Amino acid sequence: MRLLVVNPNTTETMTAKIATAARSAAGPGTIIDAVTAPMGPESIEGHYDEAFAVPGVVKAIVAGATAGVDGAIIACFDDTGLDAARSAVAIPVVGICEAATHLVSPLAHRFAIVTTLSRSIPPLEMLIERYGVSRRCRVRAADVPVLALEDGASGALAKIEREIALALREDRAEAIILGCAGMTDLAADLARRFDVPVVDGVAAAVKMIEALCGIGLRTSKIGGYAPPLPKKYLGAMADFAPRLH
Amino acid sequence: MRLLVVNPNTTETMTAKIATAARSAAGPGTIIDAVTAPMGPESIEGHYDEAFAVPGVVKAIVAGATAGVDGAIIACFDDTGLDAARSAVAIPVVGICEAATHLVSPLAHRFAIVTTLSRSIPPLEMLIERYGVSRRCRVRAADVPVLALEDGASGALAKIEREIALALREDRAEAIILGCAGMTDLAADLARRFDVPVVDGVAAAVKMIEALCGIGLRTSKIGGYAPPLPKKYLGAMADFAPRLH
Amino acid sequence: MRLLVVNPNTTETMTAKIATAARSAAGPGTIIDAVTAPMGPESIEGHYDEAFAVPGVVKAIVAGATAGVDGAIIACFDDTGLDAARSAVAIPVVGICEAATHLVSPLAHRFAIVTTLSRSIPPLEMLIERYGVSRRCRVRAADVPVLALEDGASGALAKIEREIALALREDRAEAIILGCAGMTDLAADLARRFDVPVVDGVAAAVKMIEALCGIGLRTSKIGGYAPPLPKKYLGAMADFAPRLH
Amino acid sequence: MRLLVVNPNTTETMTAKIATAARSAAGPGTIIDAVTAPMGPESIEGHYDEAFAVPGVVKAIVAGATAGVDGAIIACFDDTGLDAARSAVAIPVVGICEAATHLVSPLAHRFAIVTTLSRSIPPLEMLIERYGVSRRCRVRAADVPVLALEDGASGALAKIEREIALALREDRAEAIILGCAGMTDLAADLARRFDVPVVDGVAAAVKMIEALCGIGLRTSKIGGYAPPLPKKYLGAMADFAPRLH
Amino acid sequence: MRLLVVNPNTTETMTAKIATAARSAAGPGTIIDAVTAPMGPESIEGHYDEAFAVPGVVKAIVAGATAGVDGAIIACFDDTGLDAARSAVAIPVVGICEAATHLVSPLAHRFAIVTTLSRSIPPLEMLIERYGVSRRCRVRAADVPVLALEDGASGALAKIEREIALALREDRAEAIILGCAGMTDLAADLARRFDVPVVDGVAAAVKMIEALCGIGLRTSKIGGYAPPLPKKYLGAMADFAPRLH
Amino acid sequence: MRLLVVNPNTTETMTAKIATAARSAAGPGTIIDAVTAPMGPESIEGHYDEAFAVPGVVKAIVAGATAGVDGAIIACFDDTGLDAARSAVAIPVVGICEAATHLVSPLAHRFAIVTTLSRSIPPLEMLIERYGVSRRCRVRAADVPVLALEDGASGALAKIEREIALALREDRAEAIILGCAGMTDLAADLARRFDVPVVDGVAAAVKMIEALCGIGLRTSKIGGYAPPLPKKYLGAMADFAPRLH
Repeated sequence: MRLLVVNPNTTETMTAKIATAARSAAGPGTIIDAVTAPMGPESIEGHYDEAFAVPGVVKAIVAGATAGVDGAIIACFDDTGLDAARSAVAIPVVGICEAATHLVSPLAHRFAIVTTLSRSIPPLEMLIERYGVSRRCRVRAADVPVLALEDGASGALAKIEREIALALREDRAEAIILGCAGMTDLAADLARRFDVPVVDGVAAAVKMIEALCGIGLRTSKIGGYAPPLPKKYLGAMADFAPRLH
Repeated sequence: MRLLVVNPNTTETMTAKIATAARSAAGPGTIIDAVTAPMGPESIEGHYDEAFAVPGVVKAIVAGATAGVDGAIIACFDDTGLDAARSAVAIPVVGICEAATHLVSPLAHRFAIVTTLSRSIPPLEMLIERYGVSRRCRVRAADVPVLALEDGASGALAKIEREIALALREDRAEAIILGCAGMTDLAADLARRFDVPVVDGVAAAVKMIEALCGIGLRTSKIGGYAPPLPKKYLGAMADFAPRLH
Repeated sequence: MRLLVVNPNTTETMTAKIATAARSAAGPGTIIDAVTAPMGPESIEGHYDEAFAVPGVVKAIVAGATAGVDGAIIACFDDTGLDAARSAVAIPVVGICEAATHLVSPLAHRFAIVTTLSRSIPPLEMLIERYGVSRRCRVRAADVPVLALEDGASGALAKIEREIALALREDRAEAIILGCAGMTDLAADLARRFDVPVVDGVAAAVKMIEALCGIGLRTSKIGGYAPPLPKKYLGAMADFAPRLH
Repeated sequence: MRLLVVNPNTTETMTAKIATAARSAAGPGTIIDAVTAPMGPESIEGHYDEAFAVPGVVKAIVAGATAGVDGAIIACFDDTGLDAARSAVAIPVVGICEAATHLVSPLAHRFAIVTTLSRSIPPLEMLIERYGVSRRCRVRAADVPVLALEDGASGALAKIEREIALALREDRAEAIILGCAGMTDLAADLARRFDVPVVDGVAAAVKMIEALCGIGLRTSKIGGYAPPLPKKYLGAMADFAPRLH
Repeated sequence: MRLLVVNPNTTETMTAKIATAARSAAGPGTIIDAVTAPMGPESIEGHYDEAFAVPGVVKAIVAGATAGVDGAIIACFDDTGLDAARSAVAIPVVGICEAATHLVSPLAHRFAIVTTLSRSIPPLEMLIERYGVSRRCRVRAADVPVLALEDGASGALAKIEREIALALREDRAEAIILGCAGMTDLAADLARRFDVPVVDGVAAAVKMIEALCGIGLRTSKIGGYAPPLPKKYLGAMADFAPRLH
Repeated sequence: MRLLVVNPNTTETMTAKIATAARSAAGPGTIIDAVTAPMGPESIEGHYDEAFAVPGVVKAIVAGATAGVDGAIIACFDDTGLDAARSAVAIPVVGICEAATHLVSPLAHRFAIVTTLSRSIPPLEMLIERYGVSRRCRVRAADVPVLALEDGASGALAKIEREIALALREDRAEAIILGCAGMTDLAADLARRFDVPVVDGVAAAVKMIEALCGIGLRTSKIGGYAPPLPKKYLGAMADFAPRLH
């Protein structure tokens, strides 16, 4: 099984960290192709950055599907471009927020997402509403920029630990989801330290795609994810939109 | 007051029709700048097309805000790029689905959206959930491609009328929202024919932006719509993402 | 365009303040007829007062519609008698809580209503549930009686400011709605002071009715707002119920 | 125990029928005082009629409480004036829609309300949303005016039976609530005929008030049902609003 | 009328206390048969204990129905085995959490449940979601084991009082539900002390069953509560499952 | 990795079929221990049967955990005893309804569950509400008893096909979940025939447990799934409740 992991944040060190996490989570027969999105902002912090990351994510996933990967993962916690990618290909595609909420569900009644900046709380609240867990989940921000997670000296870890402690005490969270792909290397230590499940979305997504591919499940092609219709394009975007027809 | 109306569908005849509708709805002191998005697909039918329309919509709205317009309207019924555009500028920005659901709310307990293709039903169901009217609204598709609305001989009107009749009879709808910017010229006749409110999103959005601007209300700049942070970009998208800093 | 603004609180100084706010919000071609309800309590603080204010509100709105106004506004934040008034006339009718929640929606993900007494919180929570924004909105009370807002020396402003500060800090509110028609004169200063959108329902309702009337939208007359059937009345209420037939 | 049953519909024959049903449901030690509201429309069919029935209902309930009844029932299925009456007195007050939804809940997963005219569906849908059963309940209208229920030759019964049959077959209803006080005499026969629980709101409310009074439960007087504050009144309504202070 | 009250907690002193409360609540013509479940754990604190209490509860209720009782009450606040018992018999069956939420609903907009251990909060949150009151109710735990309530020297009362005080102040609760059958003897004193309605589920359930039986309402036998089909059993459970056929 | 699959229906041929499906879904390094619950009814059709199946399911899962399995699956679509089992052990435990709803979520906006008898629809509707997918999922019954699925000549397949066809046409389902462990052998053929994802819960649960175990995620042991406290038992149930202390 060959899986594509796309990092929508165009920062290579972050992609390398994600690749390591994905490979560590992958089963023995799974090959991980980790790529940085071919275009877009260095980090995604809120609605605006997401908009300009989507075309690169879709392009990368269509390229992967054409090259024969069996499933694809979008490794940014706002699940950048998820519906568009899913429409474009038949292989299963999951986002890391989506995968984390699905895998934490059987482990805990209530849980909390600890993300980076507070501006990301509203988009994540929309996602958990969509994924059906809003009654069980609170979103917290550690006030850590995404790229500070690439810098060991930033003090990010302490801020994340503080929010986890608050979530366990004040929100009655029974488990924690790390709300940024850049936190992927922290999950194991935090789980030991707090003695509760700490879910990293990258690992969760690898396992969820392995699960889907392992039993031959692919995206439905009737309804909202029907294959895109052929379209004429105006301007440069024609060069970025994958040629599907 | 000067308002920008952006057509995310890059089809000039459709923009012209939208411009006419917007000017017809506008108050005496309102100037309408109607533009076609500078890049993207000719029509937006589902998640995939939307993804490649967003950058052009944001670019056009940032350009408009820089040029001094007082508010902006996104004239595609999936409210293409709404959150990203809203984050990028301080002027109010509304989508036509959003505006239509807000303006129909005081007129009817239940209502129906009649859109184009069935693949657009799921994205619109997500929108009405977000806008808080899902319990009161059903989404129906007339099985009419967006660009068929530009073609008088396509039989589109009859199909739309059939869905309206079904909505009134089977869904207990008390009012109708036309679920595509390309239907903007049909509202008045359909309202007369069926004797219920028929809301065109383009007209609704013009009035909603006039309302917000008229009393000095602008987008909140704390929280989820805080101004985007400066970012380095990889690849061509840097040319399309507006320079905000 | 001629709009009727009815103050359900039968306090003339409050009506004068509302009239000023409504005229200030109105567009150039809009004439505001501001009236005090012809009967009812001096102020509306909770369910009981509302019950005895409704007949006067409906009477005033039917009188206005008969006299030819184009739309009507109910200027009390519990949207006193809204459904009854809407059933009685064909012109659009909006309440100030309703209008404020619709106009704030495109400006902020989360917001708070700051109202007068805590006994009004439950009725307002029912309204925001109905208007579809309960997930995004918290209702707070400043512990200020309605008529204290007519008295500059009451210390009301400081109490309102305290609740706004709490809403921004503790509720992650990105915008504020003033939850009483008597606060209409405070919006502009509070918006400047806190640098977030502060929505006054009176102004919002004027713009919302202008929006509806401007594009010819009126209340649906099928379903729940169908014209009342002729009825015999027992007792004095017959003199107060408008003769619709 | 002495209970007041107020018929908000000012039609004496209907009050007599309600009194019979209430007495039939009442326990051995319960005395039923059944009164017609002292003012208001002969029947309540939709939002408008309700508005002019409320003051009479509140007046009657305050008079009853002053005279020493132990609890009060509002015998119209739109629960006319429920919150206002509850605020005005300390004795428990229930509406017949409210009581029916509470008593049917332990008997069936899904149920249907069969009411009179379709214009009453939206107000009842708001009530079942408030009472927390909207996911389990569908509201149907038999197209029978309220006062046709007073006329044996109206064909009303056959229309009601038709809707019950549809509810059992199409809505998977496991029980039926009769959605008008005027249907109170039909419950027993319909239950036999369809062999499912058929709940009459009048009987349900008598038992629910007996339950509350039997264990000394009264309305909370903090929060939304706090005693009304003294108010000056403008106009004739002062004569109708009970003097509570 | 003869009612069966089953204590799923197999602790006789607790059953005696429940019996006293039930008899105190019962109407003059009501005979209370209070029994301890014939098998199961001494107290029910969380999901696991509940699982092993259910067979005994169902067995006791089927035995009661066979012996001719008119209705049955499950006197543990997690409503142990409610749906199974309801399927097995035609007489009405209610749980004490269920009954308490129905009876408190007409008394207060918001309320709180004060239960024993925090591990019981998640199961109770599932129940209030099911009963339709989750928006109005918060569940709090006093950190008191169930059997500590049988021990006057345990300090349990002070802990319960502390949570009630917090609920009134922080949750805007207008009424309190005692979240354990073992608290049944505390309701009257706590109601006096805090001057708000304090609902004991045992008393509430007695009155609710009296209400249902009093007007001849029984469980619907179509749909989810249809009589169980005859089944072969493996192993010892065959001895515990009542013979229904 | 060693996984325990427990069939709560005590029918060996069904367990054999489930074992085959589980092994077919399992990854190369996964060993499947498929067991029939040691006691309980031969098939589970509704609330009542479920109650008497739970003790055996919990017993089997505790035995498995003691013997060292890495995760456990409850192979009945009502997720029999899920919360109790999860509390009793630290290894992850999933139900097949739960697993199917999580795995279908990334594949389709809307989907339908096709189960056996209509009496199972209400319990399944409670489950999908809990799992957060009720807005996206409709439950249908094929009117097929569970054990008819063990009999090739029962005509069950044709009835299931008919409901799938209806779900695709009338509910806009984009994918199908088979709502009984006994249908596990039908998924592949039905997926081919209807050309949409058809999810078998047994296979889904195997993959979901493999996913959780593969990245070291286990049930949270704070909050609602905290280890059961030691308890004295009355009667025979003491022999069935696993000794956890």
